[in-house]
Amino acid sequence: MTETTYIPPKVWQWQAGNGGKFANINRPVAGPTHDKELPVGKHPLQLYSLATPNGVKVTILLEELLAAGISAAEYDAWLINIMEGDQFGSGFVAVNPNSKIPALMDHSVNPPQRLFESGSILMYLAEKFNAFIPADAAGRAECFNWLFWQMGSAPILGGGFGHFYAYAPEKYQYPIDRYTMEIKRQLDVLNRHLADKEFICGDEYSIADMAIWPWYGVLVRGGLYDAAEFIEAHTYTHVLRWANTIAERPAVQRGRMVNRTWGEPHEQLHERHDASDFLLKTADKV
Amino acid sequence: MTETTYIPPKVWQWQAGNGGKFANINRPVAGPTHDKELPVGKHPLQLYSLATPNGVKVTILLEELLAAGISAAEYDAWLINIMEGDQFGSGFVAVNPNSKIPALMDHSVNPPQRLFESGSILMYLAEKFNAFIPADAAGRAECFNWLFWQMGSAPILGGGFGHFYAYAPEKYQYPIDRYTMEIKRQLDVLNRHLADKEFICGDEYSIADMAIWPWYGVLVRGGLYDAAEFIEAHTYTHVLRWANTIAERPAVQRGRMVNRTWGEPHEQLHERHDASDFLLKTADKV
Repeated sequence: MTETTYIPPKVWQWQAGNGGKFANINRPVAGPTHDKELPVGKHPLQLYSLATPNGVKVTILLEELLAAGISAAEYDAWLINIMEGDQFGSGFVAVNPNSKIPALMDHSVNPPQRLFESGSILMYLAEKFNAFIPADAAGRAECFNWLFWQMGSAPILGGGFGHFYAYAPEKYQYPIDRYTMEIKRQLDVLNRHLADKEFICGDEYSIADMAIWPWYGVLVRGGLYDAAEFIEAHTYTHVLRWANTIAERPAVQRGRMVNRTWGEPHEQLHERHDASDFLLKTADKV
Repeated sequence: MTETTYIPPKVWQWQAGNGGKFANINRPVAGPTHDKELPVGKHPLQLYSLATPNGVKVTILLEELLAAGISAAEYDAWLINIMEGDQFGSGFVAVNPNSKIPALMDHSVNPPQRLFESGSILMYLAEKFNAFIPADAAGRAECFNWLFWQMGSAPILGGGFGHFYAYAPEKYQYPIDRYTMEIKRQLDVLNRHLADKEFICGDEYSIADMAIWPWYGVLVRGGLYDAAEFIEAHTYTHVLRWANTIAERPAVQRGRMVNRTWGEPHEQLHERHDASDFLLKTADKV
């Protein structure tokens, strides 16, 4: 492979299968590949997801809402296996035309409302249940500054660093250097911000924390891309303190289990339809 | 360069200057590099920005608000020259700790409110002035689905495709293939969505259009990365129709000029402090 002599063609041509770990599920076109209806359970909220960082944001919020006594946030969580192409089924594409998890249907309104993009789902649910967004205007604005910061930053972590460090078919130095520099800068942004705050928006735990933690919190704790040593995660002391605090919340621990198909058996709850589903998993742990 | 034999070290080391066109302004750490206060003009809204796609989103919204008769949206727009490191001045970092444009201060509230991330600024202004977000719950939810879609998708266009196709020091085939496939998929998502709609959220022009147009609209019109032929922009007919419709709006044409330091002289309004500033530029055109 002599990259230095590569000259792009005038018109790009797709060569299928040349995309690393997720090559088989990546395509240059959108839309459904097959007909498949989505299941609908008994609760008003129907989640179609997988326990990736973006998926976990939503299950953490739903579990936090339930832990706060908001029973209207009861939900069914159905597994979308992205390695098998579930996200290209006609039913899923109708909920999220972008074919990415998480996707949510709210059947408590008429007609039922579709929601896609984790940030949009977090905002919708937090506003619907009036929780986990600071009530004052200044706090609300700052909360959304950081929620949008996560949405714009994490594609560089997941779609850039994660791909080239962990998933690409070969190790290329230039992209790894490029994306490592940027995610270290992002972590330093968070570290300085959290130096004098318990949570992202101050004293109040919010959807900004729930959006940022599954990416940057899990990263510094060594749970993402096995990259903690490479990026010197131990130097981001305030991020680590914040990440460890959130990791101890029972709702976060439950949220991480939902739609998870990897790890230890007791960490995996492939589908979630009732609070008691978590209790059954305790047996797996013993 | 023999990429195939590269083995990442255990701990990443920064090699300054190895980052392509924007190497000099990229660093693995955050925070200010020098003391510099930001100027404050006469209007309540103080924008610190540059006419990149993310910057243009906000100036388009501000010009649309003014065109709609909302005079409280009057603003001063100050130039942040990112090639000279203005985004690392202490005053700018206090407004946006992430050191990216656009950043906004709202002095109409006490204490003044900082806003960063283009999506957060669009949402804040649209909610403040009750404009350009559909009023009904379903329309509002769909508008934010697409606003967040833009926030999560464009980093792949700008930070991925744009960098490797236009700015990287060498052409590398693997990243170009990877990111071209994804942005063609994104364009197809938009194209299918716009097949039966005038605007992103239906009949109503909204902040979702203003967020998506400066990236994907300008891209298919050939104004971004000179990549229209490479990605076969002409095949996304519905996106092109939508992009051309929006390009004709006078507020969009004004918004694109603000904080612009490239192109023809009549396209550049380095700072904007009054509506009459645009009229002076007309003279440059003649």
